[in-house]
Amino acid sequence: MGKVRFTQTMSLDGYTAGPEQTRKEPLGRGGEDLHEWMFATRTFRQMGGDESGETGLDDERMRRWNENIGAHIMGRNMFGPVRGDWGDEDWRGWWGDDPPYHAPVFVLTHHAREPVEMQGGTTFHFVTEGIEAALARAQEAAGTKDVAIAGGASTAQQYLRAGLVDEMELHVVPLLLGAGERLFENLDGGPAGFECVELVSSPAVAHYSYVRKGA
Amino acid sequence: MGKVRFTQTMSLDGYTAGPEQTRKEPLGRGGEDLHEWMFATRTFRQMGGDESGETGLDDERMRRWNENIGAHIMGRNMFGPVRGDWGDEDWRGWWGDDPPYHAPVFVLTHHAREPVEMQGGTTFHFVTEGIEAALARAQEAAGTKDVAIAGGASTAQQYLRAGLVDEMELHVVPLLLGAGERLFENLDGGPAGFECVELVSSPAVAHYSYVRKGA
Repeated sequence: MGKVRFTQTMSLDGYTAGPEQTRKEPLGRGGEDLHEWMFATRTFRQMGGDESGETGLDDERMRRWNENIGAHIMGRNMFGPVRGDWGDEDWRGWWGDDPPYHAPVFVLTHHAREPVEMQGGTTFHFVTEGIEAALARAQEAAGTKDVAIAGGASTAQQYLRAGLVDEMELHVVPLLLGAGERLFENLDGGPAGFECVELVSSPAVAHYSYVRKGA
Repeated sequence: MGKVRFTQTMSLDGYTAGPEQTRKEPLGRGGEDLHEWMFATRTFRQMGGDESGETGLDDERMRRWNENIGAHIMGRNMFGPVRGDWGDEDWRGWWGDDPPYHAPVFVLTHHAREPVEMQGGTTFHFVTEGIEAALARAQEAAGTKDVAIAGGASTAQQYLRAGLVDEMELHVVPLLLGAGERLFENLDGGPAGFECVELVSSPAVAHYSYVRKGA
């Protein structure tokens, strides 16, 4: 079985998304600026058929994000702005017809829904039985590959609290958002037992890599 | 007149001190670990007459911390564990007879007290008229040199909220303390107008340098 990996970009004041999430600003006010370092990389730009991006450390970390991932898990608020019942089921994620996951994505929700198959290998499955059931299904789908906890903050906190994350990579950018969704909250004393195995930086972002002891 | 500078070491989850400050653990549980990167530097060890420390990036940043500082400002809780009236006035700080400040230190407090002169050029002055009065006195004492906001978190937040900090250097270590005193709280939307001018790292710590626009 593969690892359970969590990768997240965070502002220096601890936010993984800005305040006031809307359909126009899914990452909240200022939230998109968090990801400038990724937008500059060749790996990111190649997704759009553009060969102009930068190579080097940040590009290598951007590439690692999706390497060897066989399934993803995300919270419902990361999947979209719909709350409560799915209604007419029009919402198919923020990412267009060909989302960047290219693998099964398990969406945590209290409201059942049929799977939604997209182009490029991404299928959204809706899991109502909780985080452990979602992880079991993701691990079965991933086979020997890893499972990525995609976010947002609340979903990551649930997996961190349950001690189910093996590796964590945090990309910390020098932004100060001032408000939004904080990653390191509601953790009952913090994510225990993580050891930093690498710290490197570019002028745009510092990359902190952790491994859970015994993982 | 010099700059107003704030320099602080912070855990990756945002804490500048651990929980449960006591006389034995003035930085709270786990708080002393924040400063391991400094203890390893030659500049730090030279204060104790030891030439064994590491040189390089972290040492250079450690040296910069006290460079060109003509006065310091700190909160009462950073000065010591005494609360309320000063009582028998025995408490003379955490730092022994020769504190590492070597300049006037202005302690914010609600309780008046005569200045306390230590060895090595450090004198503790107790200011009851608020943060702006303390800054005016510190700037007068510093002359053309800079004033350092020494901490703790609550004092830093007051100066950040008031827009009185010109330069900020944050040393972010890969520790996850889980609880304690958070720097980026109570800022009414965050410290506005800071621009990151440098981000560099060693394997032990990432150094983020900010300048307030217009400062």
